[in-house]
Amino acid sequence: MFDDKLQEECGVFGIYTNRESQVDTARMAYYGLFSLQHRGQESAGIAVNNSGTILYRKEMGMVNEIFDDVILDYLKGHSAIGHVRYSTSGDSLAENAQPLVIKYTKGHMALAHNGNLTNAKRLRAELEAQGTIFQTTTDSEVIAALLSRARIRHRNIEESLEEVMGVIRGAYALLVMTPKKLIAARDPLGMRPLVMGIKDGNYVFSSESCAFDTLGVKLVRDVEPGEIIIIDENGMRSMHVEGASKRSALCVFEYIYFARPDSVIEGLEVYKARYRAGEALAKEHPVEADVVIGVPDSGLAAAHGYSVASGIPQAGGFMKNRYVGRTFIQPNQVQRELGVHLKLNPIRSIVEGKRVVMIDDSIVRGTTSRHIVNLLREAGATEVHVRISSPPVKYSCYFGIDTPERKNLVASNHSIDEIREMICADSLGYISRESLLETCKEAKLQFCTACFSGDYPVKIEDEEARGCQ
Amino acid sequence: MFDDKLQEECGVFGIYTNRESQVDTARMAYYGLFSLQHRGQESAGIAVNNSGTILYRKEMGMVNEIFDDVILDYLKGHSAIGHVRYSTSGDSLAENAQPLVIKYTKGHMALAHNGNLTNAKRLRAELEAQGTIFQTTTDSEVIAALLSRARIRHRNIEESLEEVMGVIRGAYALLVMTPKKLIAARDPLGMRPLVMGIKDGNYVFSSESCAFDTLGVKLVRDVEPGEIIIIDENGMRSMHVEGASKRSALCVFEYIYFARPDSVIEGLEVYKARYRAGEALAKEHPVEADVVIGVPDSGLAAAHGYSVASGIPQAGGFMKNRYVGRTFIQPNQVQRELGVHLKLNPIRSIVEGKRVVMIDDSIVRGTTSRHIVNLLREAGATEVHVRISSPPVKYSCYFGIDTPERKNLVASNHSIDEIREMICADSLGYISRESLLETCKEAKLQFCTACFSGDYPVKIEDEEARGCQ
Amino acid sequence: MFDDKLQEECGVFGIYTNRESQVDTARMAYYGLFSLQHRGQESAGIAVNNSGTILYRKEMGMVNEIFDDVILDYLKGHSAIGHVRYSTSGDSLAENAQPLVIKYTKGHMALAHNGNLTNAKRLRAELEAQGTIFQTTTDSEVIAALLSRARIRHRNIEESLEEVMGVIRGAYALLVMTPKKLIAARDPLGMRPLVMGIKDGNYVFSSESCAFDTLGVKLVRDVEPGEIIIIDENGMRSMHVEGASKRSALCVFEYIYFARPDSVIEGLEVYKARYRAGEALAKEHPVEADVVIGVPDSGLAAAHGYSVASGIPQAGGFMKNRYVGRTFIQPNQVQRELGVHLKLNPIRSIVEGKRVVMIDDSIVRGTTSRHIVNLLREAGATEVHVRISSPPVKYSCYFGIDTPERKNLVASNHSIDEIREMICADSLGYISRESLLETCKEAKLQFCTACFSGDYPVKIEDEEARGCQ
Amino acid sequence: MFDDKLQEECGVFGIYTNRESQVDTARMAYYGLFSLQHRGQESAGIAVNNSGTILYRKEMGMVNEIFDDVILDYLKGHSAIGHVRYSTSGDSLAENAQPLVIKYTKGHMALAHNGNLTNAKRLRAELEAQGTIFQTTTDSEVIAALLSRARIRHRNIEESLEEVMGVIRGAYALLVMTPKKLIAARDPLGMRPLVMGIKDGNYVFSSESCAFDTLGVKLVRDVEPGEIIIIDENGMRSMHVEGASKRSALCVFEYIYFARPDSVIEGLEVYKARYRAGEALAKEHPVEADVVIGVPDSGLAAAHGYSVASGIPQAGGFMKNRYVGRTFIQPNQVQRELGVHLKLNPIRSIVEGKRVVMIDDSIVRGTTSRHIVNLLREAGATEVHVRISSPPVKYSCYFGIDTPERKNLVASNHSIDEIREMICADSLGYISRESLLETCKEAKLQFCTACFSGDYPVKIEDEEARGCQ
Repeated sequence: MFDDKLQEECGVFGIYTNRESQVDTARMAYYGLFSLQHRGQESAGIAVNNSGTILYRKEMGMVNEIFDDVILDYLKGHSAIGHVRYSTSGDSLAENAQPLVIKYTKGHMALAHNGNLTNAKRLRAELEAQGTIFQTTTDSEVIAALLSRARIRHRNIEESLEEVMGVIRGAYALLVMTPKKLIAARDPLGMRPLVMGIKDGNYVFSSESCAFDTLGVKLVRDVEPGEIIIIDENGMRSMHVEGASKRSALCVFEYIYFARPDSVIEGLEVYKARYRAGEALAKEHPVEADVVIGVPDSGLAAAHGYSVASGIPQAGGFMKNRYVGRTFIQPNQVQRELGVHLKLNPIRSIVEGKRVVMIDDSIVRGTTSRHIVNLLREAGATEVHVRISSPPVKYSCYFGIDTPERKNLVASNHSIDEIREMICADSLGYISRESLLETCKEAKLQFCTACFSGDYPVKIEDEEARGCQ
Repeated sequence: MFDDKLQEECGVFGIYTNRESQVDTARMAYYGLFSLQHRGQESAGIAVNNSGTILYRKEMGMVNEIFDDVILDYLKGHSAIGHVRYSTSGDSLAENAQPLVIKYTKGHMALAHNGNLTNAKRLRAELEAQGTIFQTTTDSEVIAALLSRARIRHRNIEESLEEVMGVIRGAYALLVMTPKKLIAARDPLGMRPLVMGIKDGNYVFSSESCAFDTLGVKLVRDVEPGEIIIIDENGMRSMHVEGASKRSALCVFEYIYFARPDSVIEGLEVYKARYRAGEALAKEHPVEADVVIGVPDSGLAAAHGYSVASGIPQAGGFMKNRYVGRTFIQPNQVQRELGVHLKLNPIRSIVEGKRVVMIDDSIVRGTTSRHIVNLLREAGATEVHVRISSPPVKYSCYFGIDTPERKNLVASNHSIDEIREMICADSLGYISRESLLETCKEAKLQFCTACFSGDYPVKIEDEEARGCQ
Repeated sequence: MFDDKLQEECGVFGIYTNRESQVDTARMAYYGLFSLQHRGQESAGIAVNNSGTILYRKEMGMVNEIFDDVILDYLKGHSAIGHVRYSTSGDSLAENAQPLVIKYTKGHMALAHNGNLTNAKRLRAELEAQGTIFQTTTDSEVIAALLSRARIRHRNIEESLEEVMGVIRGAYALLVMTPKKLIAARDPLGMRPLVMGIKDGNYVFSSESCAFDTLGVKLVRDVEPGEIIIIDENGMRSMHVEGASKRSALCVFEYIYFARPDSVIEGLEVYKARYRAGEALAKEHPVEADVVIGVPDSGLAAAHGYSVASGIPQAGGFMKNRYVGRTFIQPNQVQRELGVHLKLNPIRSIVEGKRVVMIDDSIVRGTTSRHIVNLLREAGATEVHVRISSPPVKYSCYFGIDTPERKNLVASNHSIDEIREMICADSLGYISRESLLETCKEAKLQFCTACFSGDYPVKIEDEEARGCQ
Repeated sequence: MFDDKLQEECGVFGIYTNRESQVDTARMAYYGLFSLQHRGQESAGIAVNNSGTILYRKEMGMVNEIFDDVILDYLKGHSAIGHVRYSTSGDSLAENAQPLVIKYTKGHMALAHNGNLTNAKRLRAELEAQGTIFQTTTDSEVIAALLSRARIRHRNIEESLEEVMGVIRGAYALLVMTPKKLIAARDPLGMRPLVMGIKDGNYVFSSESCAFDTLGVKLVRDVEPGEIIIIDENGMRSMHVEGASKRSALCVFEYIYFARPDSVIEGLEVYKARYRAGEALAKEHPVEADVVIGVPDSGLAAAHGYSVASGIPQAGGFMKNRYVGRTFIQPNQVQRELGVHLKLNPIRSIVEGKRVVMIDDSIVRGTTSRHIVNLLREAGATEVHVRISSPPVKYSCYFGIDTPERKNLVASNHSIDEIREMICADSLGYISRESLLETCKEAKLQFCTACFSGDYPVKIEDEEARGCQ
């Protein structure tokens, strides 16, 4: 809303059952997507496989706005995939809602993905040059077009997907539902998360494990970078694209900000990583203060860690108004100043007369940080020491995260001290890249930290390809 | 609704202006489609060309339900095409709404068509076998896929279309809008109508001329069978596909039932053709009676002709309830008998004690005719003589008209006297095919009368291809 | 819409069943209101008596837009009343939708009425002066307030209503549903119509009998002026307010324009009255001409009569676009001239080169008449002779019909010849008041013809009380 | 939702400006109500005084679902009142949305109130016995009916209100908007909160001060128990009903649970009171443990206090899904067990292997507490010690708080040890009533603690009068 945040991307969910098991797959997808709602609030959709015919519903809005009992009853099927989506505004957003449902030479197929291809523009141009038409601007449609072409030359959909994964570049967690199969795949670098679970013998996939907890699904493991998992009536099979797993590049911001703290990614609970980042900040940037306050919600875990490591008590110093929805009227017509106040209000008894350590996950443009620091000062804070649980964000993301252009990233153009001054803080400390990586070391794979370093793990062909499509 | 009618198909409308002329093309399309609403009440859409970007809105519902001032203001563009659609029910109707808007190798394109391809199934299979994916079940998408492929090999869109028209079989009136052009085309047999008009130097196309009267557009002429008309900044150009115009096969039911009586098709006013059919019926099937009553609305013109030719006075013997909409609740839960009564109620003072000649345009299954005859008898008619302004419908249509399967066409399995008995009429007379064609002789082209004779003007490849897609 | 018509008012429908009979009363009301939709398209509502609790739904929109199977299933009850409403625009229209549902000292009550009180303003002021609050601007609320007060002093609701009917002045057809009774009442002059029918032993009430035909209800008789009919578990009872039936004043425009032609009011079929008006016009204003054309829909019956009486053939010379709904976008932003064209288009083959007698039911402001005459001339009519099946409308109505202020009634300020010139007619003839009354003589009661004569049958207290409230 | 909580009641907001000041009062009300959304999410409404005419919009749904820029632009007026509402489900909820807008003898009036009258049933019966009709089941309508009657006998609205406040019993914070005045009143015991603020010389009222922070309004003071504040063009005036302020009975649950922690009520910040309750719990019910976890959101402040007082570190041990809305589909059709999981999920790294002190604000039925304790155990907690920041809730509320019947209040029928066993806790401690009151002592007025003691501060006439109406 008034947020100056890296914006969350998309979330996917899938479930495959044997027909006789009578699981209500659409309702499973509904509650699964509900638990992934933080990954995208703009549109949502569920597609089910009804004996080879794909029924679906996708619309602008949040999960609980789109679906009701009548629709979920209609969406009968033995397998289902779902999607929640965030995106920047545009003309034909409704068309871009996922899952994408298509008819190809072998029947119907539904696709849902999270991430961003970095060579989608070139691939589209090549396909168009061969006569392909496109009806959306999603990468899913590019993948579907490639997949259906590959399918002609291959024995099955999984081998076709293997070929396609050799062609597309970028970040993706992908679910493909065909009449007889549910396929999950993750890009060779594992940039976007994707986990597999099981319940009553049925396989379930999700962007995050928090959806499993909700549904009583047991987390089995993460889909591996470059892995293709096929679920069909014969059970589960796995294959890997060539060259996968040699190196990996999971988006480190999943731990810092995107994922829900109760999710477990690559074996590491997100909360734990954030907590450790707070501990590291306490070591790297100690300060004498009276209270540690995390900016809700993502700063809370790091504040916990900072507090324990520093011995400075932690308190929930902000009241956050949770009722902001998609249709909220921006306060541009009254007073601009309302912006931050509407969403955050400090608790005076916690802040007044105190030296505050304020913990946040990142600074993007810097405007929101300045507003929050000022909120604390107005509420009586005598000092405000800002600690950031990520290194300075200096480079745009091309892998599905909505970042502003480089020139608008404050850390790209200013020294830390300049930023400190701009946000009116008494001191400012960012976690170091090394410490950050240390917090995630249990994850046992490598990370993409390109937004800090500019060192992109794959070549960026489409300069304009920012954001989740 | 409770109708046992051949169902209307679709309607298209298009307008091209020079950018500077400041015509509100979306509103022109809105009022144009409004006048074509009788050709399809299920979904509607308008796409405008906004400097190369195509903006659009298409939805389930009638024209006045979908568009409001906010949307029409948003749809700014120097050219526009629109579509109204009727179709049989299905799972994903919303996806099938037109115009179809796509991105292809030369930019954006919008297509709207009325009609039905008879080889679409084969063409889809061929395209799918080459890797093409489909997101709708419309013929428009097949045409778009072929067109974008042909475009690779041709200098321009019109030559590409010429090639495509050599491949597709069936009936169509087609509008294609590209960033710089508006193209109108009609199948080589001219099965579906399409007219061209002009207003203030701007070219306008419509399925029927009644939309021109509404807008003050001057009717110039019909697009010819097999003709491709290109409108761009240089004005109007025309070309013909090879073999066009040798023979033609305009759907004769446009005159009998589909078109609005005030429309002029191929130079012949629809009302006049219907009036003459009534005259012919009076000659072929005279009867001694007191009053001629047309079944509203399509039977009224023929009733006029019958009355004048026979000297038996005509009267509007039925009250028709016009407020039946898409969302009307079918009376299956109360009493089935309500069906016809809800829509038609006889005027007792006209009918009571009278020998009635009841004029209708066709008998399909026969059920509705029986109900209407009974309505007249209950209202006191002493005799009911049914006269039908089309020959017996014995064969299904494959060119865009929703007809039941052959086995459900009463004339396919029963003699005229059997039908008379089934519909409880005192006498029953159909116009002869010869007389019917005589009523349209001014139209100066040939007609498709396959639904009477089974003599289809093109080979039918897709047996299941009934209805408008 | 673009109409320059006296606007229709409201319609009411009611049904009472014995609990065990399992009639689906809400669906009966739905189809009944559907048949009364011509009396009001702005809002509609149904209330049912569910064992003493009143369930209801009322909303802006037409009957088929508001109700669906889910709602009708919810509206379970052994009796039901419904309402369709037309009104002029205002701020809080939704609040004014009927039926009005209230709680009073004896439980719940629902009211629906058609008409207009002429002393409502005074009654409101008196009630307010005693502390009453109002939440709508409907007369129903005034009646309900009076009724609940009267109920304190009377043994039952019907005697209370008798008292209230002695206090209120004006025109009304009223239905009141209490936990145990359904009551129908008509104002002492019988200004608004109300009929009673019976089906399977259940009593049904409706503004017009056309709703009975639809439902298979047998028309028993009209509720009499000043009559109160009570239906309860003991069957039907009737009482009359003092002074009722001495004289009556049924709105003659019900026959001329408002009612559906297939309705029977006071024993006279509406079509028959209109037909006779056409006959009378032919006698009073003969003319040499080639064709008689009624302006659809209300002019058609009179055109029939004119044709038969004059020997000049009748033809349906206009195509009327029926798809104009509440949400239709007015053409003020394109060209004003579109107005009439969008709704009416002449059939050229009928009009061209002909001397036309154009029959319409009334001239209010005169603007629409001029447009229609011009349509005929543009379509080639050589002469246009206008015949109007009502006398000149010179005075505003205060009894529930939306008429413009007197100064905007063209006949109020201009001679017939001036009007003829204004509407560009070659000749103009109005039916005489005497002939008009002669056409309705079978109705065996007297008529209100105040809009022609200014001779109002009751004193008008509220000068501003025009329109249906 | 799945909550076993005392349910929040309603919230009110009002603003009065001088006409020339051009404040956008509807937008002020919008953002004000937005900040009070936690007090009621079922319906919301805003009424503005547009030069004596009251314009309004009220509907089911949350503030941001109901209003958009078009509506707020329409709601022009120099004063405004708004309302958010929670209520139990019922047939005609939409009718009960506030503000109530009425016409009475002096013009228009709008009312919005929070609270519940305990003699409403009797007052309704008395009014009905005198002929009054009711269209809603809200207390606002009772107040309006009394007010309009009183107005006849008094010089002005405030004196009328004074009389009415002598008649009605119970809890209320009331805003009344007339063409020239905005009046705020609080019941003589001050049971429901209401504060007054000022911005740019304009007076503002709100149920809670958090709405002021959002809008930059300066908190002036609380409206006093029994006080009537009148704002008009002459500024602010105050009067007190007889007998007011002798004793007071503010609902102590405003501090415990209902109000936002950043609100200041009677001079005491809500967070501070809750924090102290945590401190008191640590003293009254110490335990050896590893971590203190508050149940979000209301348990967090007390957890803070418990942690500081006990020295046991606090952590945010639960992830709360915030996207649950009014239209969320209850999981009754899948597995009931999903209930709590969908909303709350424990953070394993915080809980696992730990002895947990779980702080919640209350136990109502006990079912939710048991589920939450189990969540903690499933996540690995070795011990769970429950501490409750309110005394046992044993009696139903009749003053606007939705409590279950007494028999369903677990503390009404069970000993603390029985409850402990039912909720599977290792230990259970409630704060004592004395300590609770001590936490609020700065508030300098007395409290209603009837839900703990059954000692109701006013006589309860309507036994069924539970919940906010």
